[in-house]
Amino acid sequence: MNKNSKAAEVSMENLLRIFTVPEAPGSTLSRLEHDISANLAGFLQDHIVAEETDLVKIERDFSDTLIPEAPVYVSEQAQFLLDKVVAQSVHTSSPSFVGHMTSALPYFMIPLSKIMIALNQNLVKTETSKAFTPLERQVLGMLHRLVYDQPTEFYERWLHDSHRHLGAFCSGGTVANITALWAARNRAFGPDGAFPGITRAGVFAAMRHYGCEGMAVLVSERGHYSLSKAADVLGIGRDQIVAVETDGHNRIRPDALQAKIRQLQQQHIRPFALVGVAGTTETGNIDPLDKLADIAEEHGIHFHVDGAWGGPTLFSDRYRARLKGIERADSVTIDAHKQLYVPMGVGLVLFRDSSVLKSIEHHAQYIIRQGSKDLGSATLEGSRPGMAMLVHSALKIIGRRGYSMLIDNGIDMAARFAGRIETLEDFELVSAPELNILTYRWVPASVQAVLREVDDDLQRQINDLLSRITRTIQKTQREHGKAFVSRTRLTPDRYNRHAITVFRVVLANPLTTDAVLQQVIDEQREIVVSLADNADIIELNRLTGVALAPG
Amino acid sequence: MNKNSKAAEVSMENLLRIFTVPEAPGSTLSRLEHDISANLAGFLQDHIVAEETDLVKIERDFSDTLIPEAPVYVSEQAQFLLDKVVAQSVHTSSPSFVGHMTSALPYFMIPLSKIMIALNQNLVKTETSKAFTPLERQVLGMLHRLVYDQPTEFYERWLHDSHRHLGAFCSGGTVANITALWAARNRAFGPDGAFPGITRAGVFAAMRHYGCEGMAVLVSERGHYSLSKAADVLGIGRDQIVAVETDGHNRIRPDALQAKIRQLQQQHIRPFALVGVAGTTETGNIDPLDKLADIAEEHGIHFHVDGAWGGPTLFSDRYRARLKGIERADSVTIDAHKQLYVPMGVGLVLFRDSSVLKSIEHHAQYIIRQGSKDLGSATLEGSRPGMAMLVHSALKIIGRRGYSMLIDNGIDMAARFAGRIETLEDFELVSAPELNILTYRWVPASVQAVLREVDDDLQRQINDLLSRITRTIQKTQREHGKAFVSRTRLTPDRYNRHAITVFRVVLANPLTTDAVLQQVIDEQREIVVSLADNADIIELNRLTGVALAPG
Repeated sequence: MNKNSKAAEVSMENLLRIFTVPEAPGSTLSRLEHDISANLAGFLQDHIVAEETDLVKIERDFSDTLIPEAPVYVSEQAQFLLDKVVAQSVHTSSPSFVGHMTSALPYFMIPLSKIMIALNQNLVKTETSKAFTPLERQVLGMLHRLVYDQPTEFYERWLHDSHRHLGAFCSGGTVANITALWAARNRAFGPDGAFPGITRAGVFAAMRHYGCEGMAVLVSERGHYSLSKAADVLGIGRDQIVAVETDGHNRIRPDALQAKIRQLQQQHIRPFALVGVAGTTETGNIDPLDKLADIAEEHGIHFHVDGAWGGPTLFSDRYRARLKGIERADSVTIDAHKQLYVPMGVGLVLFRDSSVLKSIEHHAQYIIRQGSKDLGSATLEGSRPGMAMLVHSALKIIGRRGYSMLIDNGIDMAARFAGRIETLEDFELVSAPELNILTYRWVPASVQAVLREVDDDLQRQINDLLSRITRTIQKTQREHGKAFVSRTRLTPDRYNRHAITVFRVVLANPLTTDAVLQQVIDEQREIVVSLADNADIIELNRLTGVALAPG
Repeated sequence: MNKNSKAAEVSMENLLRIFTVPEAPGSTLSRLEHDISANLAGFLQDHIVAEETDLVKIERDFSDTLIPEAPVYVSEQAQFLLDKVVAQSVHTSSPSFVGHMTSALPYFMIPLSKIMIALNQNLVKTETSKAFTPLERQVLGMLHRLVYDQPTEFYERWLHDSHRHLGAFCSGGTVANITALWAARNRAFGPDGAFPGITRAGVFAAMRHYGCEGMAVLVSERGHYSLSKAADVLGIGRDQIVAVETDGHNRIRPDALQAKIRQLQQQHIRPFALVGVAGTTETGNIDPLDKLADIAEEHGIHFHVDGAWGGPTLFSDRYRARLKGIERADSVTIDAHKQLYVPMGVGLVLFRDSSVLKSIEHHAQYIIRQGSKDLGSATLEGSRPGMAMLVHSALKIIGRRGYSMLIDNGIDMAARFAGRIETLEDFELVSAPELNILTYRWVPASVQAVLREVDDDLQRQINDLLSRITRTIQKTQREHGKAFVSRTRLTPDRYNRHAITVFRVVLANPLTTDAVLQQVIDEQREIVVSLADNADIIELNRLTGVALAPG
């Protein structure tokens, strides 16, 4: 036990109290709760320390691995959480936190989540979830309809059918992508005569039965890392995620794709799935989905669309056409904790054909029995919370037109910000936004001029220096704690596909404004000024000075 | 849009309000929240309809798949949730809901969950979770120490090391088990000379490289269904989950295990993992873990213990010896949303050797970079919520001795209940509790006498009738809504391993008492009386009457 903690007395009576007696209205925990309800933004603003503390220092508060013998008072733990956890958490809902795919949450999510937690349902089976089971199926139906727009009769027929599944709820997009590829794999190498199918026999027996030298998944080189993780998990192998070249806009090249398919076929490797990206994680670009659907159809390949980020663009009257072809996908991933504005921990995968998920079905004696409506029979996870209630509420309370506005707001703001960057002498737009994500970097006009003139070798040297400087600016800005952009590495055509580090901005928080983005840029400029003595900046000046001098 | 809903006006201004303006104190949602805080048990009691409604009828309220064009008011949605979702949910925290692995939650979990949701951290990376990252590592360390009890220096050295992982947080035990077998598989068929390892090359190439005819996982026939799901997902194949025979106490038979290993070796199939069950889902029995550790060591097999249910027995001074040998496991699954009393959605897997999880590590350019402390580099899932905060708080507030009492309370109550059943003439204890799970069924004394006398064929007929009656009693009791036991099928020795249906009782809710359990039995008796006209009961009377008549 921690020497500084007061120990509560350990008795069964005291233990029962924590299960039966509510927190007193004046307790630390009740006060925190009240403050969150009354003014969430204020609570976060007041309690999260803006300036970054070194992680190694934070770790000191989380280094004791002994579980205390005697209980610690709730109030003491609440104070600890406030001082050490809340204070050192990340203000993900801040309007100037534009570096990752997190946003402010609608207020109603907080009390609704509390109700969900209090009910503590388990969606694996109806016996521990009852109405939550049809509720979850309804949400799957609503999003299935958004993507596939089948006639009403289709939904009347299949929505609650115990033998069919319009999709599966998951803890997030990664599990959704794994589920899609799992089902696709099991369908592609299904039962055949005496062969019981890959589900029962495994990958090795399946390859032998089908006379393949291997199997592969095709995706652009900008595909999400979860796909390569999926290939590992599913026994396909990471190297069998065949990365297809992209064009200057980070979109898969159909000609390169066809060439890869031919090459695999010659090697007797079966490409059983093609993944189209609808919103690349790094740049928000969208693959030519309609064209990919044609190619998948031509070769009889499962066509999956990873719309974890971009899927909700379908809500937008103005921009949904950018996803044209998604309705031809065999499966689609959408993350609810991204652009559906639901708290962390819920993604889903939809299947056009409601029988595809049968390929992963499993049963047990005490639950998810054959013919039951238990949702656990067709999910990768077992026990799962009732997050569907939050998605249901968001779809109802924000509504189709509300989401359309939120989507449009982000895309329009990204376009304006990109336009603004292009007018600036000391910044360079690296990837223009197709959705609400863009990348840029700091490059003084003089250096831009040099980069256009010099040979490949010097260009690389300068770009490497700029990458290091970009990294320094990004980290410094994060440490100041006023704004946050993320960084990634891209290989733009204009630099002969040499990798450069860039700032990445994701605009999905409705509280973010043009003025906030201007402040982000202003602060980055100030940081550059403060870096006058930085070795990379000095070297950059030297190198470009040399380059500018008559050779 | 639903004709009956009032539509809120759609404008960006109104949308921004839901992100910035708290629910008014008098609103429906605020009232619900207040009621939950003031008296959770009362709230659930008042709002959940006890008597079961047919699922098909409930489905009617969840059949509309059109996302409304215009927003629905928060108050309207709150009322809908109260009337249709809360009312028709399952009272999983009721003291008489003893059929599944759900329990009442400690009160402090509700406000703490609210804080967690409000912070909306993403544990995939430190940039969106900061203090939550060391916090999660600390919790992994605490539970690692509970299981493995390494010296303090071990934890000081490795707890926060970016290249090591004492375990992984997951959404639940299924993902934990998959993660353990995934890591075991990748280690067993790792890089070797020019072969890049199964991670990159996949199962097919790995089997060829290592000259195997397949791979297998060994587990008792009472292993959880998630293992067969894991075998499917991981490309091993469900049939390669080799189910080893159990003894009369549902524990794996070491002799049968050794025989299976020999058999697999002769077939050139490599058993790369052995799973010991610490708390079978259906009967709560524990495999002889120490013996299994010996066998795994002898054959160089990864030894995983599925302690999703029983793991926390380690807290108990009195009963922890029942898990002897668990400290020799290579990996251990524990579900936090079971006996750690944390809300739904968190399990974890621990690894004795902190380098094992390196076999599943993955990286990307914008997050989980090499050498970063981002937890996402070694988890199956990507984005994940900050549930570690809840586990941390439970460990602190309940404390080691508190958990010990909770565990002892359940095990002792199960023993008393089993003793009670054994004194009853009309019930039969089918599996005695080793932990806090037991199974039994209704069998009148006269029928028990007959079952002991008759030949195998008639015994089966009678047992099949009893199974149907057990099912009817269980469903009827569930429908009445006063109490809930689950049911499963077991193959006890005393009936020559013929499968029978039994009631299953799980005793982990500290609010459950002996009196509540007596009421469960009393109600089952009343149901039997009410079933006098039931065809199965009539047939049972006829059959046993014939058997009793002099032959």
